[in-house]
Amino acid sequence: MYRISSLLDRSRGHAGPGHRSLAERFTASAGAEGRFRTTEECLQWLGEQRELQAYAVERVPFDKLQGWRFTDDTGNLVHHSGRFFTIEGLEVGLSPFRVPTWTQPIIVQREIGILGILVKEFDGVLHCLMQAKMEPGNRNLVQLSPTVQATRSNYMRVHQGRAIPYLEHFAAPRRGRVVADSLQSEQGGWFLHKRNRNIVVEAEDDVEVLPGFCWMTIGQVRQLLQLDDVVNMDARTVLSIMPFARPHTGTGGDDPFRSAVLRSLEPEASTVHTVTDAISWLTENKARFELTQRRIPLLDTAGWHRGADEIAHVSGGYFSIVGVDVRAKDREVGAWMQPLLRPAAPGRLAFLVRRIDGVLHVLLQARPAAGALDIVEAAPTLHCTPQTFRTLPTAHRPRFLDYVLDAPQRQVRFDTWLSEEGGRFLHALNRYQIIEVEDTFPATPPPNFMWLSIHQLMTLLRFGNCLNVEARSLLACLHTLW
Amino acid sequence: MYRISSLLDRSRGHAGPGHRSLAERFTASAGAEGRFRTTEECLQWLGEQRELQAYAVERVPFDKLQGWRFTDDTGNLVHHSGRFFTIEGLEVGLSPFRVPTWTQPIIVQREIGILGILVKEFDGVLHCLMQAKMEPGNRNLVQLSPTVQATRSNYMRVHQGRAIPYLEHFAAPRRGRVVADSLQSEQGGWFLHKRNRNIVVEAEDDVEVLPGFCWMTIGQVRQLLQLDDVVNMDARTVLSIMPFARPHTGTGGDDPFRSAVLRSLEPEASTVHTVTDAISWLTENKARFELTQRRIPLLDTAGWHRGADEIAHVSGGYFSIVGVDVRAKDREVGAWMQPLLRPAAPGRLAFLVRRIDGVLHVLLQARPAAGALDIVEAAPTLHCTPQTFRTLPTAHRPRFLDYVLDAPQRQVRFDTWLSEEGGRFLHALNRYQIIEVEDTFPATPPPNFMWLSIHQLMTLLRFGNCLNVEARSLLACLHTLW
Repeated sequence: MYRISSLLDRSRGHAGPGHRSLAERFTASAGAEGRFRTTEECLQWLGEQRELQAYAVERVPFDKLQGWRFTDDTGNLVHHSGRFFTIEGLEVGLSPFRVPTWTQPIIVQREIGILGILVKEFDGVLHCLMQAKMEPGNRNLVQLSPTVQATRSNYMRVHQGRAIPYLEHFAAPRRGRVVADSLQSEQGGWFLHKRNRNIVVEAEDDVEVLPGFCWMTIGQVRQLLQLDDVVNMDARTVLSIMPFARPHTGTGGDDPFRSAVLRSLEPEASTVHTVTDAISWLTENKARFELTQRRIPLLDTAGWHRGADEIAHVSGGYFSIVGVDVRAKDREVGAWMQPLLRPAAPGRLAFLVRRIDGVLHVLLQARPAAGALDIVEAAPTLHCTPQTFRTLPTAHRPRFLDYVLDAPQRQVRFDTWLSEEGGRFLHALNRYQIIEVEDTFPATPPPNFMWLSIHQLMTLLRFGNCLNVEARSLLACLHTLW
Repeated sequence: MYRISSLLDRSRGHAGPGHRSLAERFTASAGAEGRFRTTEECLQWLGEQRELQAYAVERVPFDKLQGWRFTDDTGNLVHHSGRFFTIEGLEVGLSPFRVPTWTQPIIVQREIGILGILVKEFDGVLHCLMQAKMEPGNRNLVQLSPTVQATRSNYMRVHQGRAIPYLEHFAAPRRGRVVADSLQSEQGGWFLHKRNRNIVVEAEDDVEVLPGFCWMTIGQVRQLLQLDDVVNMDARTVLSIMPFARPHTGTGGDDPFRSAVLRSLEPEASTVHTVTDAISWLTENKARFELTQRRIPLLDTAGWHRGADEIAHVSGGYFSIVGVDVRAKDREVGAWMQPLLRPAAPGRLAFLVRRIDGVLHVLLQARPAAGALDIVEAAPTLHCTPQTFRTLPTAHRPRFLDYVLDAPQRQVRFDTWLSEEGGRFLHALNRYQIIEVEDTFPATPPPNFMWLSIHQLMTLLRFGNCLNVEARSLLACLHTLW
C-alpha cells in the first residue's frame, strides 16, 4: 500500500522540546521571568516607546475630518476609499428585554482582521513578541499590543503605508506552527457582527526584533496586565485563547483560593455542569431571545442628533461619535484622521467566582447584544455601564450590579482599569474585577447564568462565537491568579 | 462552609445504569435490535402510517395560494400572519468565486425551530421515539422524522392547530436529561441564516406512545437510513449530533475497512491533523472568502421571472418557487397551502474517505454558501448539482465531481437517495455516497480540503456552525458502516 502516514500528526501532546505538551509549555512560560528584560524593564521600555512615538491626538469637527464624509442619501459616515469601516444606523428588536426596539448608530466593519501573537522559545521558555503600539483612543496612547494587529484594509495596503511587520508569520501559506486560531467577536453594543481572527503562531526560524517590539514571557505580560491601562484589548483577547494546563509544581499551599484556581484548570475537575450543559445553556438562550437587526440610514436613528463635532443621544447617555486628527511618525502612515466612538461613561465588568467542592467556578451570563452575530454569547456576570441605570427603576438594574458595587475589598481578587480597542473607541475605560462571593451567596443562579470552571471556559473559547470580548479579557485576568 | 456540592455534576462518564458512559449507551443502541418491533416491522409500520395519513398535495398557482401574497412594494412572498417564512431576494457577493456577484430568491426564516429526538432505555437499551411524519415536499410524503419537528411559529401556536406532542420534553424548564443540544445550519444556498436547535433528551419518566410514533433503537434507524427516501433530513441531522464511542466488542475482524472505521471513532486515534488544525483551517477559509449578503426585494432579482405558478430562472436551472395545496387529516391543522422551493435537478453529495495508518479519514471541504450565517462551513468532499456544470467550461467543474461520477462500484461504501426538508423543498433529492479512494489518490488535498477522522467531525459538530447539513447527513450515513 502507498504509505501516506508521513502526513500523520505526531505532535499532539508531545509538541516541543522535552516532550512537553503545548499547554505545558505555555503554562511554564506563565511562571517564568523573561530572558531579555525583567518585567520592570519591560514597563520602562514601554514608557520609552511612548516618548519615542510622539503622537498628538486632537478632536476635530466633522467638516475638518479629512478622508471621511457623510453620504447625502443616508447620512452614513464613510471613508472615501469605501473601506476601513462605516458608521451607520441599526434598528434593533430584542425580546424579552426592557426596551423591545430601538435605533442607534453602529460601527460596520465586516472585514475580518488579524490579531496575532508570535511566540518562540528561548532557553526552553516560550516568549511572546509584544508590540508597543499607539492607538488614538487610548488615554495614554501607547499600550502593549499583539505582534500583529491589522485590519484587512491594513494588510491589503489600502492606505499605502509601510508593510505590516511580521504579517508573513500569520498569513497562509506560513511557516511556523499554529497554536490557536479562531474568529472571536468584539463589542456587540458598538459593532455590527465584528469579528477578528485571533491567532497564536510559534516561530521556528530566527525572528528579528524590530524597534517597538519586545520578547516577554506570558508571566511578564500577566504581571503587566495587573496594572491600569497597560495591556490593550487585542493583546488580552489573544492571551485568552492560549492553551494552559495545571502547573506540575505548586498546589496552592495553604491558600485554598489558589488551590481552587489550580484545580479549575484541570479537564477532570469536578464541576457543577458538563460542557454539553454549557453548550445547551447557550443554545437555550439563543432560542429564547428573539433578536432582529436591520441596517438603516444613520439619519434615521431616532433620538440621535448630529452636531458639528459629535453625533450624540439626546439624553447625553450611551455614547457619541466624534472625529480625531492623529499626528504620528511611527505608524503605517504618518498622520490621519478618523471617527471614534466615545462612551458617555465608564463600564463595570466583573466575574463573580466561587469555590465549589474545591474547584473555582465562574458565573457566566448568557447576554444578547445589539450587533451580535449569533444573538447571545457568554458574558461576564456583570457587564454594564452603571450610569445608564441611575435614572431607571430598581427593577431594571442588572443582576448583581449592587452586589459588585457593594463588594467589600477582602472579596476582590482582581481590580484593574483597562481600555477597549483604541483604534475605534475614544477613552473606553472599564473597571475589570474578579470578586469571590461569600458562602451565603445563593447556590442556584437565575436561568441565564451558569457556573463554569476555567477549563470549561477555555474549551468554549476554542471554537469562537461563545465568549464575548469582555469575558475573554476577564479570563485573561483570571489566569493571573494562579 | 455552606455546602453546595450537591450541585456538582456526578454523571459525567458514569451516566446510566451499569456505569456506562452516555457515548457507550448510544453505541450499544446502535448495535441492538428493538424491544418493540423488528426493523422489518418498523418499515411495515411506516408504510401503514403512509396509508393512514391520507394526504393529497397539488401544485396551485400563486393567485390560489390561500394565506400567502406578494407584497406590492417588494414582490416578496409572505404569509398574512407575518410569520412562518418569506421568499425574498438576496444579493450575494462572493470572492474568490467564478461568479463574483449575483441575485437570487431566498427563504428567510429567522426563527429557530426545534428538531428533537426523545430517547429512553427499555431493557437496558436506548430507544429513539421516531415519528411517521408527512411533509408535502417528500416524493413519498411520509418519512421517518424526529420526535418533535417544530418551527417557533408551530409551537407558539400561530396556526391554531393541535398542540405539538412531546414538545414539553424539549422546552425549558424540562424534566429529563439533555444529551446534546446545539444550533445547526440548514441549506445555505436556499435559506438565509437558517438554523434549527438540534436536541436529544433522555426521558426519565414513562412516555405514552401516541399514534404515528414508534420506539426504535439507533441500530434500527441506521438500517432504515440505508434505504432510499425513508429517514428524513431532520432525523438525519439529529442523529448526527448523538455521542458515540468505539464499541467494546468487535475489531472489524478480517475487514480492514471496518477496522479503520472503528479506530476513527477513538479520541486517541492517530490522525493527520489535530482539532486545533481543523478549527484553524475553517478560520483561514472564513478569512479568505469575502461574503456579502444584502436582502433585496424579490422583484429585483435579475434573471428570475415570476409567472402565474412559478418563480424561475431564465435558464431553467437552479430552482423555482412554486405553491402547493396540502390536504391532510393528521397534522397540526387539517389543510393548508404554502410555497415550496423546487430544485431543478438532483444533487450529488459524497464523502471521499481513506484509510490512513489504519484510521478512516474523511475529506472535508471548506465551502461558502450564499445564505451562510458564518461564511464557510465544512461540507462534503463533493457538494453540487451536476446539471449546473453541463454547459460550463471544464475549469469550473467542482473538484472531485468527475472522480465521484466515475468511481467504480467496488469503491462505493454507501449509496442512497435521500430527501431534503420536505416542509420547504419540493422533491429535493440528493444522491448520498461514501466512496473509498484508491491508494494512488493524491496524498495532499487542495488547501480548502482537509482529512479528518470521525471523532474529529463529532467534536466539531458539538459546537454548531461547523458542519453543513449535508455533511451532517453524510456523517449519520457514515455511522452505518461500523
